[in-house]
Amino acid sequence: MIESPNNEKIKHLSRLISDNRFRKKSGIFAVEGKQENERAAKFGYENTEYFICESVFNEDLPKGKINFVSEKVYEKIAYRGTSEGIIGIFKIKYFDLKNFCPAKNSAVVVVESVEKPGNLGAILRSCEAFGIDALIVTDAKTDFYNPNVIRSSVGCLFGMNIFQSSNEDVFKFLEQNNYQIFTTFMDESAVSIAETDLKGKSALLFGTEHSGLSDFWKTKGKNILISTSGTIDSLNLSNAVAICCYEISRQKLQ
Amino acid sequence: MIESPNNEKIKHLSRLISDNRFRKKSGIFAVEGKQENERAAKFGYENTEYFICESVFNEDLPKGKINFVSEKVYEKIAYRGTSEGIIGIFKIKYFDLKNFCPAKNSAVVVVESVEKPGNLGAILRSCEAFGIDALIVTDAKTDFYNPNVIRSSVGCLFGMNIFQSSNEDVFKFLEQNNYQIFTTFMDESAVSIAETDLKGKSALLFGTEHSGLSDFWKTKGKNILISTSGTIDSLNLSNAVAICCYEISRQKLQ
Repeated sequence: MIESPNNEKIKHLSRLISDNRFRKKSGIFAVEGKQENERAAKFGYENTEYFICESVFNEDLPKGKINFVSEKVYEKIAYRGTSEGIIGIFKIKYFDLKNFCPAKNSAVVVVESVEKPGNLGAILRSCEAFGIDALIVTDAKTDFYNPNVIRSSVGCLFGMNIFQSSNEDVFKFLEQNNYQIFTTFMDESAVSIAETDLKGKSALLFGTEHSGLSDFWKTKGKNILISTSGTIDSLNLSNAVAICCYEISRQKLQ
Repeated sequence: MIESPNNEKIKHLSRLISDNRFRKKSGIFAVEGKQENERAAKFGYENTEYFICESVFNEDLPKGKINFVSEKVYEKIAYRGTSEGIIGIFKIKYFDLKNFCPAKNSAVVVVESVEKPGNLGAILRSCEAFGIDALIVTDAKTDFYNPNVIRSSVGCLFGMNIFQSSNEDVFKFLEQNNYQIFTTFMDESAVSIAETDLKGKSALLFGTEHSGLSDFWKTKGKNILISTSGTIDSLNLSNAVAICCYEISRQKLQ
């Protein structure tokens, strides 16, 4: 049982959680929470070890190397307090768009340089829930293995096809794979998603909350919108993505 | 021009922003940002004064009493840095469900004890965008005039009918006004929203992100769900509300 917050393993784990660069360099990342660890293991992420606080964690122990830690130590390392009692360390998976084989009538969501981990996590959760084939982030400002992304996605990034790439490479990929491109920027040309056929092979492009879709994409697809009736002319980014994912799913299930 | 952060007016303003109890006691609240201030004034909130940093605020000055402040002072009081240059003080409006006259085919959203101001703000934004007649929060854990609610709603709470009440009083209101009640809790009885007629007078009930809808509501309406096809069985609360508001609006526009 590790009882000292100054234990070398605990110091290493804390750094893995708080230091993005260190995480990338190490090639491993930390996953907190029961459901999140179950999903990571279920979807083929390779576990290297677990840190478990037995007085908090009341489930069967997972397979693998386990370090038991005291409540005091767990409280120090956990970002959610002592609510779950388990932190797993897994190897980062690198996904390359070149190796991605889209499903038939694949729908993918492309988000430009999303900054807030909470937004990226919520977007991952919606994409997973509605069977979106892949989430692609261009000019990424936050990485998928950030603890706040994992938390707000409730572990939904595990099991998703997730890619980071440049706008140019994503456009090439979409063209080569015959996706119909749908853009979402404020313009009178935009057609309501409810009146747009989204049942085929579709790529939905979203810009940043702050400045919208970049010029790169504006001439590259059919511009769509979510029809609203109020006085506010835009939605929260993760809400807009969720609604579009829902509409794709609704049309496909009809 | 106020140049000292120790100026009494600035100290009072800072407290108004950071101290929820003080805000309630004072009966006034602070609004930061151009769009947010425009909306507050447009929708009949009574302004008492403005704090404007002229080197940042490059618009026509609003009507009312204006205190000019230095950049240094503005940076201290603004929670978004110096991006907008305007903070307005407005009188809190108290809304009573007893005085609310619902529109024909009114749709209202009821959310139980939402805790995160960011979630409440995003919900207000979706409700406004899709023409929801009122947002009602029961057993409120955060108040509408919290600066983070105003910010994440982009000022959408101004212009909305917003109420805080108890579950019992809300149920009484919905019954007296002949609303059809739709609940959203995990249960096999739930019917997909896409297959549910939401065009009439509808009240949609949502529980907390953590524990879902309380038992109080479970027997009081028709249980609905957002059909998903992935492996995760729930959505982020504000995303779920956004999708339901969209679906109501989509059905009404058909």
